[in-house]
Amino acid sequence: MLKPVAGLKKSAPPKSKPKSTRASPPAAAKAAPAPVPDEPAHRVSPLAPKSFAKLPPLSGVRLAAGEAGIKYQGRTDVLLAVMAPGTQVGGVFTTSKTASAPVEWCKSALSQKSARMLVVNSGNANAFTGKAGVEVVRQTADSAAALAGCKPQEVFVASTGVIGEPLPVQRITKLLPEIYENTGAGAWNDAARAIMTTDTFPKMATASAQIDGARVTINGIAKGSGMIAPDMATMLSFVFTDAKIPSDILQQLVSQGVQDSFNATTVDSDTSTSDTLLVFATGKGALHDPVLRANEKRLDDFRTKLFALLKDLAVQVVRDGEGAQHLVRINVNGAESQASAKKIALAIANSPLVKTAIAGGDANWGRIVMAVGKSGEAANRDKLSIRIGNHKVATNGVRDPNYSEAFLAKYMQRQEVDIDVDVGVGKFSSGVWTCDLTHGYIAINGDYRS
Amino acid sequence: MLKPVAGLKKSAPPKSKPKSTRASPPAAAKAAPAPVPDEPAHRVSPLAPKSFAKLPPLSGVRLAAGEAGIKYQGRTDVLLAVMAPGTQVGGVFTTSKTASAPVEWCKSALSQKSARMLVVNSGNANAFTGKAGVEVVRQTADSAAALAGCKPQEVFVASTGVIGEPLPVQRITKLLPEIYENTGAGAWNDAARAIMTTDTFPKMATASAQIDGARVTINGIAKGSGMIAPDMATMLSFVFTDAKIPSDILQQLVSQGVQDSFNATTVDSDTSTSDTLLVFATGKGALHDPVLRANEKRLDDFRTKLFALLKDLAVQVVRDGEGAQHLVRINVNGAESQASAKKIALAIANSPLVKTAIAGGDANWGRIVMAVGKSGEAANRDKLSIRIGNHKVATNGVRDPNYSEAFLAKYMQRQEVDIDVDVGVGKFSSGVWTCDLTHGYIAINGDYRS
Repeated sequence: MLKPVAGLKKSAPPKSKPKSTRASPPAAAKAAPAPVPDEPAHRVSPLAPKSFAKLPPLSGVRLAAGEAGIKYQGRTDVLLAVMAPGTQVGGVFTTSKTASAPVEWCKSALSQKSARMLVVNSGNANAFTGKAGVEVVRQTADSAAALAGCKPQEVFVASTGVIGEPLPVQRITKLLPEIYENTGAGAWNDAARAIMTTDTFPKMATASAQIDGARVTINGIAKGSGMIAPDMATMLSFVFTDAKIPSDILQQLVSQGVQDSFNATTVDSDTSTSDTLLVFATGKGALHDPVLRANEKRLDDFRTKLFALLKDLAVQVVRDGEGAQHLVRINVNGAESQASAKKIALAIANSPLVKTAIAGGDANWGRIVMAVGKSGEAANRDKLSIRIGNHKVATNGVRDPNYSEAFLAKYMQRQEVDIDVDVGVGKFSSGVWTCDLTHGYIAINGDYRS
Repeated sequence: MLKPVAGLKKSAPPKSKPKSTRASPPAAAKAAPAPVPDEPAHRVSPLAPKSFAKLPPLSGVRLAAGEAGIKYQGRTDVLLAVMAPGTQVGGVFTTSKTASAPVEWCKSALSQKSARMLVVNSGNANAFTGKAGVEVVRQTADSAAALAGCKPQEVFVASTGVIGEPLPVQRITKLLPEIYENTGAGAWNDAARAIMTTDTFPKMATASAQIDGARVTINGIAKGSGMIAPDMATMLSFVFTDAKIPSDILQQLVSQGVQDSFNATTVDSDTSTSDTLLVFATGKGALHDPVLRANEKRLDDFRTKLFALLKDLAVQVVRDGEGAQHLVRINVNGAESQASAKKIALAIANSPLVKTAIAGGDANWGRIVMAVGKSGEAANRDKLSIRIGNHKVATNGVRDPNYSEAFLAKYMQRQEVDIDVDVGVGKFSSGVWTCDLTHGYIAINGDYRS
């Protein structure tokens, strides 16, 4: 669970080079000048948004990125976010039984309910690194806490990259003081870029909402590109708001909001050891009355905007799915429960045969039937209906009389494909997003690590 | 469940052209002479056995293949097997909720416990074809039954190929009388070829066993190549013995034997609508005393040989996995139950990231850790150990001190790769077979149907 899907406010793509702090970079990085630090390693996904959101300053949050050279050279790989005293936090994490040391740290820190700092590194996931990995997180938190004068438990840590390799923590701790000095309110683009691994574009979204007539802001960044690349893993997302929301309520909101966003998306069905979504509320924006319950009507606008922003970020991750050529929305109706509808939708979304058919521009609906059957969920084969786009391909368990191969062949040339399935047993629905399975995925993931 | 894995008796590859009956072929097929009927559509899998089993005649079974031209031209696509009166039968089928009409027919026919005929066609799965599809099976069974003078319920029917397209049953029923006339005891190679879809080699195995000192024979054929190809689906396997085994006992044996064979293999995690395994016992071989229980000691040799033959056929299917370049055996130890061990092994076997790493010759064990975590089954991250070949890559939750990238890089060049994982929580084990995920899989399944 907690897997990657897009669509809110957008503006022109950020042209400015990220502001990067390069403090005592490791040997290899020292010599040559940074070779276009904002150029991704792979060709930009054809599904990338045509423009990027421009995130405004957000009261109570300062950020900066730096180059620790942990794995990547000539680009930023450490993000530091500093939040105002009193910042509240909620989060959800990977369900993996082999979760990374930073995930375990964050889960524990969450019980403190308050956050002052976020430290993220890319290039090494600090996963499957035993006691040494736990020590790396502790040292990172200690070093950061000393800068802000907060408790280590108020420092949230996330790592993404290779699994199973020791993380040289000194590269981070040595760099933190300088990054800390450089933090500012405008470095959102830098932040989104510093956490990228095999991502081909930075993922950002912003929204504004009203609580009691007071205008508050929500900014979010994310990274992820499938579960991954040569051996990177992970979806990470960090969302910040200047609204004043107590951590218990924030936690309820994020747990609910993730269901139709990050948990309704899949690239390759693989679950990272490090998936992390954290939502921070500084309470330093426009004044509003205290928020008492997650479901109160006063929060309606904020909740709607937050959930839409989470979905926006999640779909951006799918748009950057490794090798993706098509963005696919799968909607299942007529299921006996919402959970059943989602399970069927994910069975279709994760089927290699469905995904390769879409890659080939083939509306091979027989494979959708197969995937419904494979899910193990209740479905009435003789009432099953399938639409691709607005075209009925199957009705009541057989090919639709008006089925048109020519229409479908044309429709499948689109970058965005909609599949609607009615399984004919109930009235529940669920929708998920995925991408196709292409030669690009094999090339990215089948290359030898080097 | 009931998904495809190899290893018994082998002899020289069959050179002879299949004996094919061509009765009133459809228009398209009529004109041109058959263009090399035994040449598969795709290049032969590099994992194909170096030699093929030569199946001996088996008392009480006669077979022949014919060309109905349902989808393929210039090759056989219908198999007819005629069994002696009194033949007993047991079977297992796909767990798909959208099973094909032939699967539903066979499940029902199985309750009769006796079998006289088997009719199989390739090229059209007769799945998701509604009432018309049911009628196709009924007509096929009626036509065949009339030839042998048996009940339609003693005719077993299987179809493999495109899903959702009407099957022109007349092409089969018109051809059956001529195929029936041509049946013989030696046409095993023809039989194995007639049921192929995107298979690149025919799958056959034979064994002999002793019951009470009497020597009996077991012959089996199978088809399958992933779940599929452009839009073929399905694993089919038919096993015949001249031993005298009552259907209840045969059913127990096949249900047990499938667990570590066809149900311990996966190519792409997709479950066909048509998977079918049938075992027929003619009772016409060397005389032995009546068999009373599946677990009696007198059956030990027969049971062992039957199970080994099922595994042989299942691994042959994996060796022909679409685009496969590596055959992979995954063994999970230290699990809290056998079911848990199998679930973890299948999570590793089905992980696109593990499969692409193997395709790229990359011993990327971090992805194995990921897949263990993703399975949701009990595992102790800090006791987890992984071996690839005989080389320890991870011990007690961290990279092994003697880890050698160079050794592994060499090992991964092999065609057959062994992965052993100990999850450190119990004493149960399970093993599965799979293949890698390559550009070949994308090419085969991403091509447009035409």
